[in-house]
Amino acid sequence: MNKKFLLCLLVLLTVTTATFANANKEKSGSESKGDLASSQMELPKYVFVFIGDGMALPQVGSAEIYEGAMKGGEYPDAPRALSFTKFPVQGIVTTHDSSSFIPDSASTGTSIATGHKTLAGVISMDEKKEVSYKSIAKIAKDKGMKVGVVTSVSIDHATPAVFYANVPSRGMYYEIGMQLAESGFDYFGGGSLADPEGKKSKLENKPGNIFDYAKKNGYKVVNTYADVMGLKPVEGQKVWAVTEAPADGQALLYEIDRKENQLSLADFTQKGIELLDNDNGFFMAIEGGKIDWACHANDAMAAIQDVFAFNDAVQKAIDFANKHPEDTLIVVTGDHETGGMTIGFSGTKYDSFFEKLQYQKMSYVKFDEVLKSELSKNPELTFDEIFNLTEANFGLTKNESSNGLQLSAYELEQLEEAFMQSKTPKDSRNKNEEYYISYGSYEPYTVKVTHILNQKAGIGWTTYSHTGTPVPVYAYGVGSSNFNGYYDNTEINKKLVELIN
Amino acid sequence: MNKKFLLCLLVLLTVTTATFANANKEKSGSESKGDLASSQMELPKYVFVFIGDGMALPQVGSAEIYEGAMKGGEYPDAPRALSFTKFPVQGIVTTHDSSSFIPDSASTGTSIATGHKTLAGVISMDEKKEVSYKSIAKIAKDKGMKVGVVTSVSIDHATPAVFYANVPSRGMYYEIGMQLAESGFDYFGGGSLADPEGKKSKLENKPGNIFDYAKKNGYKVVNTYADVMGLKPVEGQKVWAVTEAPADGQALLYEIDRKENQLSLADFTQKGIELLDNDNGFFMAIEGGKIDWACHANDAMAAIQDVFAFNDAVQKAIDFANKHPEDTLIVVTGDHETGGMTIGFSGTKYDSFFEKLQYQKMSYVKFDEVLKSELSKNPELTFDEIFNLTEANFGLTKNESSNGLQLSAYELEQLEEAFMQSKTPKDSRNKNEEYYISYGSYEPYTVKVTHILNQKAGIGWTTYSHTGTPVPVYAYGVGSSNFNGYYDNTEINKKLVELIN
Repeated sequence: MNKKFLLCLLVLLTVTTATFANANKEKSGSESKGDLASSQMELPKYVFVFIGDGMALPQVGSAEIYEGAMKGGEYPDAPRALSFTKFPVQGIVTTHDSSSFIPDSASTGTSIATGHKTLAGVISMDEKKEVSYKSIAKIAKDKGMKVGVVTSVSIDHATPAVFYANVPSRGMYYEIGMQLAESGFDYFGGGSLADPEGKKSKLENKPGNIFDYAKKNGYKVVNTYADVMGLKPVEGQKVWAVTEAPADGQALLYEIDRKENQLSLADFTQKGIELLDNDNGFFMAIEGGKIDWACHANDAMAAIQDVFAFNDAVQKAIDFANKHPEDTLIVVTGDHETGGMTIGFSGTKYDSFFEKLQYQKMSYVKFDEVLKSELSKNPELTFDEIFNLTEANFGLTKNESSNGLQLSAYELEQLEEAFMQSKTPKDSRNKNEEYYISYGSYEPYTVKVTHILNQKAGIGWTTYSHTGTPVPVYAYGVGSSNFNGYYDNTEINKKLVELIN
Repeated sequence: MNKKFLLCLLVLLTVTTATFANANKEKSGSESKGDLASSQMELPKYVFVFIGDGMALPQVGSAEIYEGAMKGGEYPDAPRALSFTKFPVQGIVTTHDSSSFIPDSASTGTSIATGHKTLAGVISMDEKKEVSYKSIAKIAKDKGMKVGVVTSVSIDHATPAVFYANVPSRGMYYEIGMQLAESGFDYFGGGSLADPEGKKSKLENKPGNIFDYAKKNGYKVVNTYADVMGLKPVEGQKVWAVTEAPADGQALLYEIDRKENQLSLADFTQKGIELLDNDNGFFMAIEGGKIDWACHANDAMAAIQDVFAFNDAVQKAIDFANKHPEDTLIVVTGDHETGGMTIGFSGTKYDSFFEKLQYQKMSYVKFDEVLKSELSKNPELTFDEIFNLTEANFGLTKNESSNGLQLSAYELEQLEEAFMQSKTPKDSRNKNEEYYISYGSYEPYTVKVTHILNQKAGIGWTTYSHTGTPVPVYAYGVGSSNFNGYYDNTEINKKLVELIN
């Protein structure tokens, strides 16, 4: 045969193959649904669901604006610091639960994991707390996929729990831990346990320490940096990887407080990918839980840094998807907004100065510890003394500052007032309406410090609880086009179930 | 040359061409662009762009939650009071301008109308105020489409102006009015003019009163309810329909203050549809401008009612689209968020009580007039006297209330303090930092009344200016799928231009 002809045939074959591959790829990028059952080609084998707890548009926007501001405000190019805002598909979802327009993480998690609305505080059960709903993770497990659950807070917290447990109350940490150990899921990673011994449980026959119970059930439990990072896939081996440094609430450290060589959400996600990767596919649910906690405390810099930590975890999934583009789906969403965060403050009007946040060196939690330690060393601690530590850790100053962090008389007055509250023993404080609006249940001095730094940056907060604003969903990969539109959070589950079933 | 080789080349060429054609076709259904020119089928003939000024997810969500709460909170069904949140397509856009993450309506309007970023205050010109950008409305006009511009605020305000004018400053109302009269656009409808005689203009050769100038340029100008509602299409007749009752800032009345048989945004939109309908198609830009004004003043109920008024206007377009489903595109968006509105307040924690807003009977503007009138009648007006009027118009009470509107001692104290400020002549007030954060540039007593009513409902505000949070885009009809995704507001324009070109 003619060599030219052979070459031409080869090119033709290559082009044709590329065409079909491309067509499949394109189709997954279109918006229609209902066509999934009809085409095996479009079903993802590897499914990631990332939940940024308390993460809505203000949190996402703040992280991107912080990055933009730190780059000197590269106008007019839009900042795109986060991987998932570049995803081709995004939707908006409503988040209300069965009895409130302002939901909690148990009810919204139940919606995402099971497709059902329920009451605040309920983990994957109905409003009467009688019926257990089956989660997408359990459906995936039944289908032969491997399953992993990862979080930056304690692994028995509401958002991870909805995927593997069914309990009437999110506070039943011990029972949740038991169900974790009994789940048969292939991988757990992240924070520790809130109640490993069942001290708060009323259960009569306790199976003992939850970690030991899990080991009895076949789990390999590891909790050092070296052991977690050294994990290798072993056929049939279930793994539970726990942070080496359980912080507040048994969670991972806030990203702003984490040092290199301390385990991150991205580390636990990456390890999950390595351990779960198999020919039958996997389902992973990953929560960035401390975004929510930072927003409850109205600490913008801690929240933004935890959005970046969450983003790093998403990046691990993207890296995997790039190796398996025909088989991977990544969905990123928030469960609700926390804090009533806004990108604008009355005092700064049409300006914002997010670069001022860079002078914050630690989370509110760590500064609480500093304050507590100073006060225990010296109950007569003066405002000037604590102010020196504030200046060192947040940049706020009484002097002229090229960073724009000089405090006004009004701001200083508020700080001093908050310090007097923090110096007063908790039980002796007059916790009236004004007190709660000013400080919530947080340490008055610390929350006032972050409030003022945030306001100087141009960030406002309206609550220490959640809010009822709709949240974004971002999707990438096979089946992602189903996630376009404006819909209810229960639909996220229904779309996922349709895709893996 | 070998025949087989030639044949092979031909096949290769065919496959390659088909590949690209196919790729283009696929692309049009997905989020990418560059596809539309290839298919006449997908180009809309009738294009509506609705801009809810200051409307982002909190405003949209608040309107839907208010509706849900008024229906007794029909849980767990998602409230879907608004037509456009049911649209099959929605996106999210970033809104920053050339120099700030928090933009104004001139710069965001310029982005939407022309596809270019610019500075705050600039109407469809570049940052140096030298180059005029051509708006989508002018492009549509050049293509032989009829063009209409409608707004609930004055027709020379920034958002409507970006479509027909090019001026260095949004404050040049007279010059904007002149350009309106010279635009040749087929229909203007809504509010009146801020400076019809050019009293604030430095122009040397003024063409006189703008309404007269427009008449000279061939416009039929009408400004009574009967004349506006009685308008009928006349071949070649340009029409300018003006509200019969110019309210604050020459705008339409706030929806909450509007009586039946007073012209609404929906009336002006419907009339535009009737007058512009023709075989060459039309382009209409419609602004719900008073959503923004209400949010600046932190008046949630006025804002929500104006979202409903805006929604009624969108419904007119939907009704038209239902008659022309193969030819119509409707895009609904906000230009930026205003007020830092949130659906949650520290004092109400995880609860919301939007039904409490129903007891508000008038906008903050109308109550300002009540307050001013009372004070002018009696400069010694007491707090008790003004409080009676407050109770009548907002429901807030000192007594036990089944509506949950009883004021706490802390709330009463704030109201009384604000009233003392309002009683003080403006020039004598100590407008320090605390004053501005508390009241902005608004009447202290009125803004405190809406703040407290809003907080009781579970709504917070953080600013009297705009914020930098991304805003939603909703799309329906021919070419709507292009509007899925997360992108910059300049892309809205580029997608539209591509669709009409």
